[in-house]
Amino acid sequence: MSTAWTSRYALRTKGVTSSAIRELLKVAQRPGMISFAGGLPAPEVFPIQRFEEACHKVLAEKAALALQYGATEGYEPLRELIANNMARYGIKARIENVLITSGSQQALDLIGKLFINRGDRVLVEAPTYLGALQAFNVYGADYVSVPVDDNGFRTDLLEKPLRSGPKFMYVLPNFQNPAGVTLSEGRRHELVLLADRYGIPIVEDDPYGQLRYEGEHLPPLVVLDRENLCRDNGYSIGNVIYLSTFSKTLAPGLRLGWIVAPPDVIAKLAQLKQGADLHTSTFNQFVAYEVARDGFLDKHVKLIRKVYSERRDVMLQALQEFFPPSVTWTHPQGGLFLWVTLPKGLDMPAIFQSAIEQNVAFVQGDSFFANDPQEGSRHMRLNFSNAQPEQIREGICRLATAVKYHLAMRTEIPLGV
Amino acid sequence: MSTAWTSRYALRTKGVTSSAIRELLKVAQRPGMISFAGGLPAPEVFPIQRFEEACHKVLAEKAALALQYGATEGYEPLRELIANNMARYGIKARIENVLITSGSQQALDLIGKLFINRGDRVLVEAPTYLGALQAFNVYGADYVSVPVDDNGFRTDLLEKPLRSGPKFMYVLPNFQNPAGVTLSEGRRHELVLLADRYGIPIVEDDPYGQLRYEGEHLPPLVVLDRENLCRDNGYSIGNVIYLSTFSKTLAPGLRLGWIVAPPDVIAKLAQLKQGADLHTSTFNQFVAYEVARDGFLDKHVKLIRKVYSERRDVMLQALQEFFPPSVTWTHPQGGLFLWVTLPKGLDMPAIFQSAIEQNVAFVQGDSFFANDPQEGSRHMRLNFSNAQPEQIREGICRLATAVKYHLAMRTEIPLGV
Repeated sequence: MSTAWTSRYALRTKGVTSSAIRELLKVAQRPGMISFAGGLPAPEVFPIQRFEEACHKVLAEKAALALQYGATEGYEPLRELIANNMARYGIKARIENVLITSGSQQALDLIGKLFINRGDRVLVEAPTYLGALQAFNVYGADYVSVPVDDNGFRTDLLEKPLRSGPKFMYVLPNFQNPAGVTLSEGRRHELVLLADRYGIPIVEDDPYGQLRYEGEHLPPLVVLDRENLCRDNGYSIGNVIYLSTFSKTLAPGLRLGWIVAPPDVIAKLAQLKQGADLHTSTFNQFVAYEVARDGFLDKHVKLIRKVYSERRDVMLQALQEFFPPSVTWTHPQGGLFLWVTLPKGLDMPAIFQSAIEQNVAFVQGDSFFANDPQEGSRHMRLNFSNAQPEQIREGICRLATAVKYHLAMRTEIPLGV
Repeated sequence: MSTAWTSRYALRTKGVTSSAIRELLKVAQRPGMISFAGGLPAPEVFPIQRFEEACHKVLAEKAALALQYGATEGYEPLRELIANNMARYGIKARIENVLITSGSQQALDLIGKLFINRGDRVLVEAPTYLGALQAFNVYGADYVSVPVDDNGFRTDLLEKPLRSGPKFMYVLPNFQNPAGVTLSEGRRHELVLLADRYGIPIVEDDPYGQLRYEGEHLPPLVVLDRENLCRDNGYSIGNVIYLSTFSKTLAPGLRLGWIVAPPDVIAKLAQLKQGADLHTSTFNQFVAYEVARDGFLDKHVKLIRKVYSERRDVMLQALQEFFPPSVTWTHPQGGLFLWVTLPKGLDMPAIFQSAIEQNVAFVQGDSFFANDPQEGSRHMRLNFSNAQPEQIREGICRLATAVKYHLAMRTEIPLGV
């Protein structure tokens, strides 16, 4: 019966990815569970009082507009606020370069819809954000993967994949999900030059860019593209589509993201968005504008940086303290995740099972590889933004116990057999 | 330059419908314009005070959940409220039959994604909701159209189109957009029997069903399907997917709709929704739940019925008074629209132009026909929910002036030539 409609009506099944992580997140919500599995912000940093004031103001002064249908492109004052906010990161966008989306996830869906025909290739990082794979899979994408290292995307390995003619490159330059690594400045320059040489656009996904805890902010690809290619006459053409979101700086429950692109691309994406959901919630856009305005967003981002950098440090410290020396991990300069690499020969699903029994959850690495899940078999993604510091320490301790148990088992097998 | 990306990167252009109506709605917002063009609710009936209380309660008591990521299927109390609310219209749904969507438009997009492969046929009414065409076009749908008359979809003309093997039928049984007509009870029975005989599912779109101003509520197709086919063992299988929304009863700015379907279909749609936008705004779902609960929704729907039925009556009266006898129109028993038919031989775009010059806007009929826009050349869709009664009267008077002018021109041409 569970496949009744699927078989009777020949529904689409290819490309409909059943997300293991979705199931996992249910487990991760069990009482007592310390979860490093999701990518959830800390609820402690939600600016509730500010939201309260914003809702009150919007309903008192602008309810007739805020509760009504709105423009597909988004609420103009919010688009302007976003453009102004990005300007301080060097991104020169005008209102007509900004399309409001229902979270960054919708941006990925619209980009998939616009670019991908069945069998088209998309060039992605290995590992990469699995939500992007889910969005692109539906349109029948095939993938070319290029590995990342501690300096991000391996641009030295890009030329051959670029010659295979992908429709676009999907890149997370800052504190990448899942690996936590950041694309070095040198590689950023190389990347935009390669994109231009081969005529392959870049989709730059930057949900975490503002959440940097150490080091200097690096120029976004969309900025370097403009500079390198001497595009001084406004952001009317370029090789980069830039995505970001309020999910990590205000609240994910609003589902507010945005796309920055040349006006002709924005126009096409807006047409697709109209068919997809008419427009993003007007009410949430009005509220987000009232929350973010008058410098609040910047102040609030500083608070988030403080809270998350402490949690990152606690996790790094605990890993150092509890994990055996054969295990390594990345050192993220920002964002929400780090990436652990275990020694060869361990059974990751068994470790995962042990961890769940110890009431600690993480995401196994295999989901993040577009071409060969096996590449992820030694990796775990750990989120450090959601759990509180004392929980993080306790959770890493429990996780270390599970890992050490399986390490010991592995060592013993040759003796025992 | 405006096609720079489109040509350089071979972006999708087929299926990306440039909506004339989108452009029109901008014109319709000009100061002094009386607009019968959009499908906008009256802002006077937005329950602002209730929203204010709901926002306050949600932020005071549940902010950590309401601002956080949530389940793709939706907020459980809201799904339950919807199931309970639909039960009074005879629809026996359980929570697992309900998927919350980002407005009904997203439901159409997800259904297109699930069902339609390039070149698949969809059986639609002529005329039909153009937003559905926009959603389905992107997936490469072809259309088979069956005309409507004063009793709705012409079921007597269905057998041949059904034999051509459409993937599904898309039907608006209540106060159809754009024609304002309602599918008769007899035809409803025929339709579900035909759907079952040919194995073609029905997508029943019912955004206006609760807004009935006269006559008796007619059973939804999803109910008749169940009854006729003796499906007593719960809503686990059937031929009908049912869609509705809070856009016309609470506020469209929330972007909250829902799909009712068998659990296996809901599971597939939820997977597609996850790739499309992860989930619908948690905050809006919490707020809508607080607004709608404890019987408020029913009370509020009564108020809306009162306000809109008065506006409908004013429009019908004004049409009678100002329009020449050669013009006819439908008599909607509910909903937001009526459909005007002009005598043959008039130039509708010229009438539209004259109307705009007189500061009154409507939508020309051609956009609502999937196969032959020419079929719409004698029709105009008029919305009666958004403008206030005195504006409605004034707007119809202006529109009549424009129509009469073109009627006179038509008559004079043979004399003058």
